[in-house]
Amino acid sequence: MTDEPGEGRRRRGGRGEQGKPKVIEQRPWAQPRLKYAPTAVISEDEVESIHHASLRILHEIGMDFLDADARKMLVDAGAEVETGTERVHFPAELIEQRLAMAPSSFTLHAPNPERNIVLGGNHIAFGSVASAPNVFSMDGGRRVGNREDYQNLIRLTYMLNCVHFLGGYPVEPIDIHASVRHLDATFDAITLSDKPIHAYSLGRQRNQDCLEMMRIVRQVDHETLEREPSIFSIINSSSPLRLDTPMLQGIMEFSSRNQVIVLTPFTLAGAMAPVTMAGALAQQNAEALAGLAFAQVVRPGAPVVYGSFTSNVDMQSGAPAMGTPEYMRAAMAGGQLARRYNIPYRSSNSCAANTVDAQAAYESVFSLWGAVMGGVNMLMHGAGWMEGGLHAGFEKMILDAELLQMVAAFLEPLVVDDDTLAVEAIKEVGPGGHFFGVAHTQERFRTAFHHPMLSDWRNYESWEEAGSPNAYGKANSVWKTLLANYEAPTMDPAIREELETFVAKRKEQGGVPTDF
Amino acid sequence: MTDEPGEGRRRRGGRGEQGKPKVIEQRPWAQPRLKYAPTAVISEDEVESIHHASLRILHEIGMDFLDADARKMLVDAGAEVETGTERVHFPAELIEQRLAMAPSSFTLHAPNPERNIVLGGNHIAFGSVASAPNVFSMDGGRRVGNREDYQNLIRLTYMLNCVHFLGGYPVEPIDIHASVRHLDATFDAITLSDKPIHAYSLGRQRNQDCLEMMRIVRQVDHETLEREPSIFSIINSSSPLRLDTPMLQGIMEFSSRNQVIVLTPFTLAGAMAPVTMAGALAQQNAEALAGLAFAQVVRPGAPVVYGSFTSNVDMQSGAPAMGTPEYMRAAMAGGQLARRYNIPYRSSNSCAANTVDAQAAYESVFSLWGAVMGGVNMLMHGAGWMEGGLHAGFEKMILDAELLQMVAAFLEPLVVDDDTLAVEAIKEVGPGGHFFGVAHTQERFRTAFHHPMLSDWRNYESWEEAGSPNAYGKANSVWKTLLANYEAPTMDPAIREELETFVAKRKEQGGVPTDF
Repeated sequence: MTDEPGEGRRRRGGRGEQGKPKVIEQRPWAQPRLKYAPTAVISEDEVESIHHASLRILHEIGMDFLDADARKMLVDAGAEVETGTERVHFPAELIEQRLAMAPSSFTLHAPNPERNIVLGGNHIAFGSVASAPNVFSMDGGRRVGNREDYQNLIRLTYMLNCVHFLGGYPVEPIDIHASVRHLDATFDAITLSDKPIHAYSLGRQRNQDCLEMMRIVRQVDHETLEREPSIFSIINSSSPLRLDTPMLQGIMEFSSRNQVIVLTPFTLAGAMAPVTMAGALAQQNAEALAGLAFAQVVRPGAPVVYGSFTSNVDMQSGAPAMGTPEYMRAAMAGGQLARRYNIPYRSSNSCAANTVDAQAAYESVFSLWGAVMGGVNMLMHGAGWMEGGLHAGFEKMILDAELLQMVAAFLEPLVVDDDTLAVEAIKEVGPGGHFFGVAHTQERFRTAFHHPMLSDWRNYESWEEAGSPNAYGKANSVWKTLLANYEAPTMDPAIREELETFVAKRKEQGGVPTDF
Repeated sequence: MTDEPGEGRRRRGGRGEQGKPKVIEQRPWAQPRLKYAPTAVISEDEVESIHHASLRILHEIGMDFLDADARKMLVDAGAEVETGTERVHFPAELIEQRLAMAPSSFTLHAPNPERNIVLGGNHIAFGSVASAPNVFSMDGGRRVGNREDYQNLIRLTYMLNCVHFLGGYPVEPIDIHASVRHLDATFDAITLSDKPIHAYSLGRQRNQDCLEMMRIVRQVDHETLEREPSIFSIINSSSPLRLDTPMLQGIMEFSSRNQVIVLTPFTLAGAMAPVTMAGALAQQNAEALAGLAFAQVVRPGAPVVYGSFTSNVDMQSGAPAMGTPEYMRAAMAGGQLARRYNIPYRSSNSCAANTVDAQAAYESVFSLWGAVMGGVNMLMHGAGWMEGGLHAGFEKMILDAELLQMVAAFLEPLVVDDDTLAVEAIKEVGPGGHFFGVAHTQERFRTAFHHPMLSDWRNYESWEEAGSPNAYGKANSVWKTLLANYEAPTMDPAIREELETFVAKRKEQGGVPTDF
């Protein structure tokens, strides 16, 4: 550690937002806020019906918790375990009392404090694609994930101002051995970028290692780390109604240290959940409530997020469908449930398309419509998700960044005052005139409207002369421009060395077991 | 006329919805309804501020009405005309009193009564692309509009259940002489399709001819026609603050006969309207109010629609931008204004893309988000609009039809009751099971979810084996399949003959003057 004051400036080497070279046209970093009323697709009575159905499910049917420590903690808190099984039955009061302990809003700390994000209230944060096994670019085709692609996708999320956090590994770096992958991958995530990060819950040691690396990069002591949530983990239930061992250990590790748990059931209606959307939502809600209540048993007041990922399968093929009308309504109803519990809400920008065509765009925008008007606080897979999550796309990341920027601009207030109503300018121009030349226009036109990074608004003739480019091809050139101009965030060499030493030591110790 | 009872059956030759061959997967014809609260992007106070700014504009600045008859009627109603000019100044009371006379909802009658649509309340109707000078298909490229393309686009709108009305000529049939174009084009529109139609206000005689053809095809007398609105006309103000002669004549012809006037200013912020969105909306509102009040002067209670088309220009190139964040917020604020006046609301599905790529899709879905959550009743250019209106696209029409179907499915209520909450099914399956086989799924899976006509949900390997098709290519094959299976709506030969006779007679008379 140096004794130079101001963490932000120390890490940035004194270069603020203004210091960065402007590589492409994009909005400055900022968290959008939803100042419009979220869309309610069901009534308050119907929200209560889903809530009560969930409580019945958790009480009458119960849920399998595949960890003895977790079950013991729940029994101590008032739950019942069926003798000789892993099935936990929850009294309604246990759920309701514990849920009431969760904070409605908190800050997730980033390696660079200027990139801290607020989760909750009307704040929105957009995350990168996460957890894709494959990666695709127009030039390289579809391939299994590797560290080089992993690093490049992190570089892009760092450079795209509209991406606020890393949702996980944008693509799985398969070429790093599983026993040490979390060490190298986290090192990359916090040295190539400066935004908040995720840790996978795949055994206690991984959670601990990643958290320690965040402590080192933030240069804070353990007490500060425990006061300031600095990492999050997505906990997926195994629908229907099961929480597996590493997921439960993840909750215990992170909630006990006041880090962020995002509990997201993946309830595909017709497959792992009822074919009816209300039933899929009731099951989603039951699973989420059980996991969230458990986090509050581990540590009352620990920061948690209510995650929703209810969609449907195509009943002909069994393929998951994304960005569908069902998905939109489920995203909105999920937001209503999260708000009922006064807990931050997570949804996703999803699509099932195989290529960056009109389908990829419309499924993503419909997903965003559902998520944003559903009151999302934390948008996972915001940029780069393709093929129902089976590949991360370089071109899709740019397309999505354009969509996220447009959503952010849409969420800006439409200012109505004497100045913007412009009656004097209208008088000056008069019937039959035009506004190009008047002072009211000249004073404002440079910043009046959203500037696209991808949309092509040339007239047909100019566009045709330029070779009839489409958005897919343009996205390819945008990410290449970004990567060509990438500069890593500056970091005190002493911090980097401390990180490297930690990674080397943990590798010497053999990393982590990979037996599941 | 025959004496067979039931207009619907007479025209359909006894074939109902069920009788039609199922050519592609699509939803049945139905008008969606917005049961969710529309999104308010400005406060009620801000709506009032825009309202009052509009009244100030109409009173202090005034608006040019380029028709002496119109000016006289307005003076008789209490407006003032500046001596020696065409400028009309409106007292606030005139506007407010006349606006209050407009109906909040009405039925627009179609050639086939089964295709009548309700405009107003929470009803939504989607229209086809209209008024494009050029047409594009993947095979034929971009070309100037002609009658064959015109007819084919009408055939497609007839076959696409999600398109409820013809918004105008989907493409201008340039190869028909302008003096008789409205006769042949209207003949095609009401013989190749059976949905509600539009007439262009380009001189009184055209309005009269088109209305008479609707009377003939509906086989009703003049009194019934005047009781039952059977045609509509889009009236565009020449922004800023001018209504041209043929537009005013259109209002006089149609409002006097109780037909539908849709008053739509085309207020591009930064060009024909102030660079600030509030100012563009104030000007839009002033122009709309003036035209709508005039329609109510012509005939109190005449059916009118409040049209909004406020977007922005790209201040670098001057190109109109569509489906932008500005467009979305303007569409929503426009809806708030229309609801303030309790008048049905018109918006559009717009895009500025030159090709059917991701941009075309995202600009369209963002437009739909703005329009639908803005409370649109009448969506113009719903299917097929490209390039800011400069071409109608065959493939885009199919893409848009998919989007409209998805919106319609999204607007369907999410049913929450004991049956859909499915607690018993969840109990039957239990933790760790799956829902494919249970009765609750089996009884519902066929109709549980939206079926796409365009989206490709195959896994990557199957999709690649099929030649890596994209949505653009698939849309091409869908419209060809539709056209190959087109059958015209059945029509009593006597009605067709009556129409043909009318067209022939009017052609003999020389059609209409083409001197503007």
